Amino acid sequence: MSVINFIEKHRDQHLEELKEFLRIPSISTSSQHKPDVDRAAHWVADHLRNAGMQKVEVVPTPLHPLVYAESPRLPGKPTVLVYSHYDVQPPEPLELWTSPAFEPTVRGGNLYGRGTADDKGQVHIHLKALEALQTQHGKLPVNVKILIEGEEEVGGTNLWDFVRNNRERLQSDALVISDTSMLAPGVPSITYGLRGLNYYQVEITGPSQDLHSGLFGGAVPNPLTILSRTIAQLHDRNLRVSIPRFYDDVARLSPSERKALKALPWNEAEFRKTVGAPGLAGEKGYSILEQLWCRPTFELNGIWGGYMAEGAKTVIPSKAHAKFSTRLVPHQDPQKIAALVEKYFRKLLPKSVTCQFEVLSTGKPWLAPYTHPIFRAAADALEQGFGRKAVFIREGGSIPIASEMSDIFHIPCVLMGFGLPDENAHAPDEHISLENYFGGIKSAALFYERLATL
Amino acid sequence: MSVINFIEKHRDQHLEELKEFLRIPSISTSSQHKPDVDRAAHWVADHLRNAGMQKVEVVPTPLHPLVYAESPRLPGKPTVLVYSHYDVQPPEPLELWTSPAFEPTVRGGNLYGRGTADDKGQVHIHLKALEALQTQHGKLPVNVKILIEGEEEVGGTNLWDFVRNNRERLQSDALVISDTSMLAPGVPSITYGLRGLNYYQVEITGPSQDLHSGLFGGAVPNPLTILSRTIAQLHDRNLRVSIPRFYDDVARLSPSERKALKALPWNEAEFRKTVGAPGLAGEKGYSILEQLWCRPTFELNGIWGGYMAEGAKTVIPSKAHAKFSTRLVPHQDPQKIAALVEKYFRKLLPKSVTCQFEVLSTGKPWLAPYTHPIFRAAADALEQGFGRKAVFIREGGSIPIASEMSDIFHIPCVLMGFGLPDENAHAPDEHISLENYFGGIKSAALFYERLATL
Repeated sequence: MSVINFIEKHRDQHLEELKEFLRIPSISTSSQHKPDVDRAAHWVADHLRNAGMQKVEVVPTPLHPLVYAESPRLPGKPTVLVYSHYDVQPPEPLELWTSPAFEPTVRGGNLYGRGTADDKGQVHIHLKALEALQTQHGKLPVNVKILIEGEEEVGGTNLWDFVRNNRERLQSDALVISDTSMLAPGVPSITYGLRGLNYYQVEITGPSQDLHSGLFGGAVPNPLTILSRTIAQLHDRNLRVSIPRFYDDVARLSPSERKALKALPWNEAEFRKTVGAPGLAGEKGYSILEQLWCRPTFELNGIWGGYMAEGAKTVIPSKAHAKFSTRLVPHQDPQKIAALVEKYFRKLLPKSVTCQFEVLSTGKPWLAPYTHPIFRAAADALEQGFGRKAVFIREGGSIPIASEMSDIFHIPCVLMGFGLPDENAHAPDEHISLENYFGGIKSAALFYERLATL
Repeated sequence: MSVINFIEKHRDQHLEELKEFLRIPSISTSSQHKPDVDRAAHWVADHLRNAGMQKVEVVPTPLHPLVYAESPRLPGKPTVLVYSHYDVQPPEPLELWTSPAFEPTVRGGNLYGRGTADDKGQVHIHLKALEALQTQHGKLPVNVKILIEGEEEVGGTNLWDFVRNNRERLQSDALVISDTSMLAPGVPSITYGLRGLNYYQVEITGPSQDLHSGLFGGAVPNPLTILSRTIAQLHDRNLRVSIPRFYDDVARLSPSERKALKALPWNEAEFRKTVGAPGLAGEKGYSILEQLWCRPTFELNGIWGGYMAEGAKTVIPSKAHAKFSTRLVPHQDPQKIAALVEKYFRKLLPKSVTCQFEVLSTGKPWLAPYTHPIFRAAADALEQGFGRKAVFIREGGSIPIASEMSDIFHIPCVLMGFGLPDENAHAPDEHISLENYFGGIKSAALFYERLATL
């Protein structure tokens, strides 16, 4: 039986096992789910052992463990390092899920549940591809090293300590990550560019305590209004970020790249439908794909303060809070941008309030030079796995590991993702297309086989 | 024993009984506290019976009951209608209370607890003044009608149905309300002006669901940013409300009134200390007391949306929410202002979002013509009760009943309050000065006695 036939034959078994993995609520942002995060790490480790990997370790860190494994050494064969993450985003707001976030359910050709698309489903694709190769051939075709972390969604740094301390062990010829999306249904895609991400949190304090808005309103600084007014000044009327020097290092789009983006089989109507808003809103002078992939943003992710419950409370609160982020593109430097954002934000605030400004995480943008033969191997495997030519795309999300690993090891990095942009990663009703999940297992197996011939 | 001596002698007993009243968490905004609100109504009714009142009723309404009582009829004596409320604001944020909100505690000459100042403490002042008169004289000196509602903090309308349906029964010569503050410690005060209050809630919807800020950020409308941007446009740089025609009907301050306000024994340093912010912020061109008492405001009371919990979530939320209010001054019309606010708010919104705009409540401003002899009686009673001359002041808060009752019955309304502006009404660590509480009971008793001679 060929590997592809083997994969075809085990579809039901693969799906049931993925559901088992998805039922573990490995929410890395929540300290109360720490035991579940640990459980997910051990689940991955156990299944790596069944997939021909040796030296499987669950490595403790000050926060969440990471899982590392190596296949038995095959001299003369290339070595590929596969990175992914087993942690997931919080499921809130819970009431917007059609079926419970941690009770995976199949509907209309999709599997629904937190982590289906981002990224447990894609972790499982590699586990099952390796298992198929191991079972059918008795060994893997190349040297495989696997590193699956539990802090991706929390912007954790413990991965980097591990990487720095294990540089020799991790040395490989190429890096493979499946944590991105395909351009459209049925269009296998290789991502060659990602945005970086800085995440911030602020607390604005006006009065030393909550005040009655009747007795005090009109003469005291309202931190909610001041926060709103400050945020409003961070974009201009063309929806360009107003922070001075924010665009200084942004790489200009070449006419040929703009042309290539325009030629992609990308469906704007489908995108508008996914967004579901009465209209779109983006930086003037750029196409939607350029806005999403090649331009930096300032985005508010959360805001809160004052009375938020049922009914009316006439209060001027002492404090207002916001969480926001900047997506970065080549060649913006995260540290430099963080300093610019904080400086300008503080400058906009009136003297009647104080501000606590925190940078929760920073992450570089990334752009791959896709001339290395491994990109060809990936494109061919995807074409065979899906029966359609693969495209080269960029993506607006952030995978810090891509740029950091490229910097540390100077090896090519292939982003071969099996999600879709409308699969609600980070939102209620997250799902993965079963067609892409099964096509992903086949493509990954074919990719490992092709790597052996490089 | 004189009534005053009687009151002096029962201080400890009065305080213990007030604590019992305060322990009932009669939070009218919270449906889960409905049984407590009912309990508080019955507590008031029981204690009115002990204070010489007859025909005591707990009147059910579609929301919270109101308590109504009349004293035995004394022909030839004037009739006074006393209004107050037994409901309280929510206690949140709980962690900022030094002692629990519903476990009243004495510290440094003050009684701490939700409702101490606003308004259970002041309800109790009248209960104990009437009880002292009844106990010492065997009857009350005037005809008293008492109406204590349970929906003041929720802007409920059931009181008005009761008033409209019982106009004959409620007919009186004057209205007395104790739900305001004294200008400063030791300065007994009669309030002759109040601001009105409109309360609003908005929900802005952009994307039909939460979106990943990496995959979608830069091309879609972020409702949080749009809400902030809209709010920012509701004040100009002089902190004047920018809503067109908002100030059209605002009564101009006369030079003599500005002079009178300036002459009041009001301590700006004390006010700044109470606020506790690094600076104040109010409409340019007006003194602080003018900003607080005579100028209308637009004030944000709550804002929320997106990710508000621990850590980082890279989300563009579908919805953003805000609660805000306008304080109104003579001769602004609440309905007209509500329409202007909604119209301008909607006009500022981009077409990429939808908006649900709710007016939760409206309330008129009020200004008393304080030439009626009852104001003299009140001032004299306060002077005798506190040993210091009473002042005539305005207040920034809202007591809709004052203007509505004036409109319905065409009777003078005396606002004789015993709180202080820094007693944290609506905030954590609400308290009342025990000196003012006991002085209030004496002044109220003296006031009822003086009314008999009018």
